[in-house]
Amino acid sequence: MKTASIIIIGNEILSGRTQDTNSNYLAKKLVERGISLQEVRVIPDDHSIIKTVVINEASLKDYVFTSGGIGPTHDDITAEVIASCFDVPLLVRDDAIELLARNYKNGRKDLNAARLRMARIPEGANLIKNKISGAPGFIIKNVYVMAGVPQIFEAMVQEIILDLGSVNPILSKTIKVFKKESEISDKLGHYANRYKDISIGSYPFNNSGVFGVEIVISHTDRILLNKVFKEILLDFNGPNTS
Amino acid sequence: MKTASIIIIGNEILSGRTQDTNSNYLAKKLVERGISLQEVRVIPDDHSIIKTVVINEASLKDYVFTSGGIGPTHDDITAEVIASCFDVPLLVRDDAIELLARNYKNGRKDLNAARLRMARIPEGANLIKNKISGAPGFIIKNVYVMAGVPQIFEAMVQEIILDLGSVNPILSKTIKVFKKESEISDKLGHYANRYKDISIGSYPFNNSGVFGVEIVISHTDRILLNKVFKEILLDFNGPNTS
Repeated sequence: MKTASIIIIGNEILSGRTQDTNSNYLAKKLVERGISLQEVRVIPDDHSIIKTVVINEASLKDYVFTSGGIGPTHDDITAEVIASCFDVPLLVRDDAIELLARNYKNGRKDLNAARLRMARIPEGANLIKNKISGAPGFIIKNVYVMAGVPQIFEAMVQEIILDLGSVNPILSKTIKVFKKESEISDKLGHYANRYKDISIGSYPFNNSGVFGVEIVISHTDRILLNKVFKEILLDFNGPNTS
Repeated sequence: MKTASIIIIGNEILSGRTQDTNSNYLAKKLVERGISLQEVRVIPDDHSIIKTVVINEASLKDYVFTSGGIGPTHDDITAEVIASCFDVPLLVRDDAIELLARNYKNGRKDLNAARLRMARIPEGANLIKNKISGAPGFIIKNVYVMAGVPQIFEAMVQEIILDLGSVNPILSKTIKVFKKESEISDKLGHYANRYKDISIGSYPFNNSGVFGVEIVISHTDRILLNKVFKEILLDFNGPNTS
């Protein structure tokens, strides 16, 4: 199974000003493509930290996705850091200018210095289209560099996601049990031992005083998953429930 | 300034099933205590990964906060991993049993093996009370181990937060400018250069077609912050706005 990590770049997340939703959005899409998300890291707008983390993750995972820091202001340093990670020049590229210019009334004439910053792309990278505001993201080796604004990030993910992973999604089934987690955990531990391949999670809920646990089992093999699902369902809820 | 990192432990976050809100909640509280949150890492329920990350972060930051993996089921391994990080035994401790038992009708008599798992605390750790469901978190050295369920996590944060950092919060002021980010970024860059100590971020917004940027400046020194705030406000919005 292919592996991935997500790197969220931005002081506004670390200060609590902004709630990150991009990693959750992409996490769900990766599951559909059968890709195992192994880590999310939220880091500040700091050249050396971004560089260290990107180089490290890119060497360990099949895919690395970054979010944030590709806008027009002084704190948007992601593109230059990524170029330095791969030791290639950062160029104001004509293909990026072309995509960017379409977004302005007077096209290229409206591209001031700040806007041209958004056309700076590492040499050799492929562009990721941005149907919301024009300014592209890019792909270099196994690193996918995308915007931080959720609407734009999501549009960029849609541009790339179908080319990644496989058509074998990670499937999940949920068994709802109306008992406290501490009453079912022994039994559940046995299933986790018996089916080591299957990811088995338990998530307590409390809906207005009705306590219970959602048992979530996941695997790419539908037949195996259904077998274990029926077994756990029968064990916990008896033959007359579904 | 004291530094911190947050480690969110849980496959349910990485699969996209659950949106993490704990790190955002704690991030805001840390700002109020003048503590600089330097990284958030979301990692799976995996012994060796948790151990590596916790040891690394604990050696680099003043405070490390973990969330998740201290419930009663097989996938709740955080307590045993933390004990192994500090090479101390994990004990079913009487002070933890006491806190846990209060939550059950028949007290200690209701504590089955699964529930007693939640009283397993590394030797020498201090307990963090949990007014929601009894089962405590704990503090060992500079590592604060808390629950993943948001309601319980937040209650635990409230128990510990006033003992951390200082009474010098990181203060922020926001200047709203009704221009596109690419029209103000040059000027803003000059301010970032002139006041290197002050964190200056710019966050574009689009409220039903009204475009603009929120400039957020942050520092612990209220007088310096107000000076720069007035300067930027006058520069961008002129003398007649506020």
